[in-house]
Amino acid sequence: MKIAIDAMGGDKAPGAIVEGCISSLKEIDSNIVLVGKEQIIKSELEKRTKDYRRIDIVNADEIISNEDKPVQAIRRKRNSSMAVGFKLLKKNEAEVFVSAGNTGALLAGASLRLGRIKGIDRPAIASIYPTKKGSSILIDAGANAECKPRNLYEFGVMGSAYLENVLNIRNPKVGIVNIGTEEGKGNKLINKSYDIMKSSNLNFYGNVEARDIPYGIVDVIVCDGFVGNVILKLTEGVAMSLMSMLKEVLTKDIFSKLSAIALKGGLKDFKSRLDYTEYGGAPLLGVKKPVIKAHGSSNGKAIKNAIKYGELFSQRGVIERIEEEINRMGADEFE
Amino acid sequence: MKIAIDAMGGDKAPGAIVEGCISSLKEIDSNIVLVGKEQIIKSELEKRTKDYRRIDIVNADEIISNEDKPVQAIRRKRNSSMAVGFKLLKKNEAEVFVSAGNTGALLAGASLRLGRIKGIDRPAIASIYPTKKGSSILIDAGANAECKPRNLYEFGVMGSAYLENVLNIRNPKVGIVNIGTEEGKGNKLINKSYDIMKSSNLNFYGNVEARDIPYGIVDVIVCDGFVGNVILKLTEGVAMSLMSMLKEVLTKDIFSKLSAIALKGGLKDFKSRLDYTEYGGAPLLGVKKPVIKAHGSSNGKAIKNAIKYGELFSQRGVIERIEEEINRMGADEFE
Repeated sequence: MKIAIDAMGGDKAPGAIVEGCISSLKEIDSNIVLVGKEQIIKSELEKRTKDYRRIDIVNADEIISNEDKPVQAIRRKRNSSMAVGFKLLKKNEAEVFVSAGNTGALLAGASLRLGRIKGIDRPAIASIYPTKKGSSILIDAGANAECKPRNLYEFGVMGSAYLENVLNIRNPKVGIVNIGTEEGKGNKLINKSYDIMKSSNLNFYGNVEARDIPYGIVDVIVCDGFVGNVILKLTEGVAMSLMSMLKEVLTKDIFSKLSAIALKGGLKDFKSRLDYTEYGGAPLLGVKKPVIKAHGSSNGKAIKNAIKYGELFSQRGVIERIEEEINRMGADEFE
Repeated sequence: MKIAIDAMGGDKAPGAIVEGCISSLKEIDSNIVLVGKEQIIKSELEKRTKDYRRIDIVNADEIISNEDKPVQAIRRKRNSSMAVGFKLLKKNEAEVFVSAGNTGALLAGASLRLGRIKGIDRPAIASIYPTKKGSSILIDAGANAECKPRNLYEFGVMGSAYLENVLNIRNPKVGIVNIGTEEGKGNKLINKSYDIMKSSNLNFYGNVEARDIPYGIVDVIVCDGFVGNVILKLTEGVAMSLMSMLKEVLTKDIFSKLSAIALKGGLKDFKSRLDYTEYGGAPLLGVKKPVIKAHGSSNGKAIKNAIKYGELFSQRGVIERIEEEINRMGADEFE
């Protein structure tokens, strides 16, 4: 199998991307196809290793930046690393595509170039959400700021299929984010989605209050992309601001400083639980091929992990599972 | 001035309520009217103090519980402590009402019994949000799960008036919660609200990403009640789960334990920044009299602070400021 990587996307590209590719080779069976400016990629590879037989380069001269307008960029920059990456998938010259570039363009490109899975109305971004118990998946993390009830149901199906097959969580519990736990709370979107999910094949837990999300109350956290994006960014903001307050406390006086040194190992452990690089990237679910969106500020480790999960995403047949399940239920009925 | 308190509302009522009232007397000029079961209140008072000349009791035999349906409860339980509290405000026998009881019933009662401020379409709950810099106000914290653009504008006006007059923050910065900072991001509700606020008299900052909220990027955080409730509860959930992870780290081995003891003072300081009891309660803005919703699990200190802020809410003429501003702009135009 071949995994295509956008060598030019992300704040630390191409260095961190190339580094991640090289270190992934020890942990995957697939070969890598790096897409981007050939000379630059070659020199980044040669800086790091002599043996890159399992890495091919496909040249692409243009770059889609974060400032580019998504749909326009994917349509006009036909020779960008992202557009060429999709082309490889389309022609079956690669099975998976990983990019840390412009999220909107990646979403637009996936829908336009790969197409949606039959029965799926809106693809979504699924983000791994670290909890006290382990990890949940949050879907949609920001692709769809406005949703219909059938979309939330689809998110539940897609999130479950990914968790079950890639992260080996059996019969994952699915909950909808709401402002109360009782049935009937919240707004119309939530209420209709609740009814659909309750009568579906999902292992449906019901409503979930945001307070319980960090404790891992459910495995699949379903919400529209607006709420999902707020949840992800707020979690990051609260955690980081707390850590910086804690740092102030820990460095206040010499006695605290000494204690802080003693605690350093423990705190490192604590910080690592919040480390997004462990999870590498967010799968884009609902399109016909596996696409992974890596974090814009991905370092080599994040890219390595994104590639690892990308390989599993393809090997475990997640897309086939989604297609089976969505067509068994006939989501079109919920329109 | 007289401040009416619902003696029967909240998880720790009536003990914590009575305790909070007694300790508030040292910090306020007003007198207190405790509303609820007279004999019980009397015995709670006598347990704690001999001198309660500044505290009156108004008897109310019924109690609205958290399980009661809001509108129904306020209509049928005419002799509940909450209903009687509103009656005192209506008859000008008290100026402010504080309750830690059923939030929905308090909202329904305020709208039905006191009425909305002229020009305000939807009253909202404004919650103090502790930040790294101090405190912001989040509005709406959960009263309106579905909003129109004019509502978000009104929330901005009401939040600003409260912050400026009660918390002495001059010309508070107002931001809308969105999933990107650029104009045009997000959904239709946000975009229309953005346009209204941009052309208003508010000190409008623009879009705010959830990540920046805990750092105090704006003073007034505007969002619909669904998103607001998610923000409040998630902040609590993330902070509490992090604290419990931290605790695990700190008690792992004997050396860490010793360090933890040394750090205890600092950690206490750290925890107190997250302590909602400092802020006491959330003002209900948009109705014709000052109403404060105290946290359901309020202790004496939280009640004392809710009373203190309730007094300022009335003394500083917040309601008059809101009425002036909303009618100057003519929010009805935005319908």
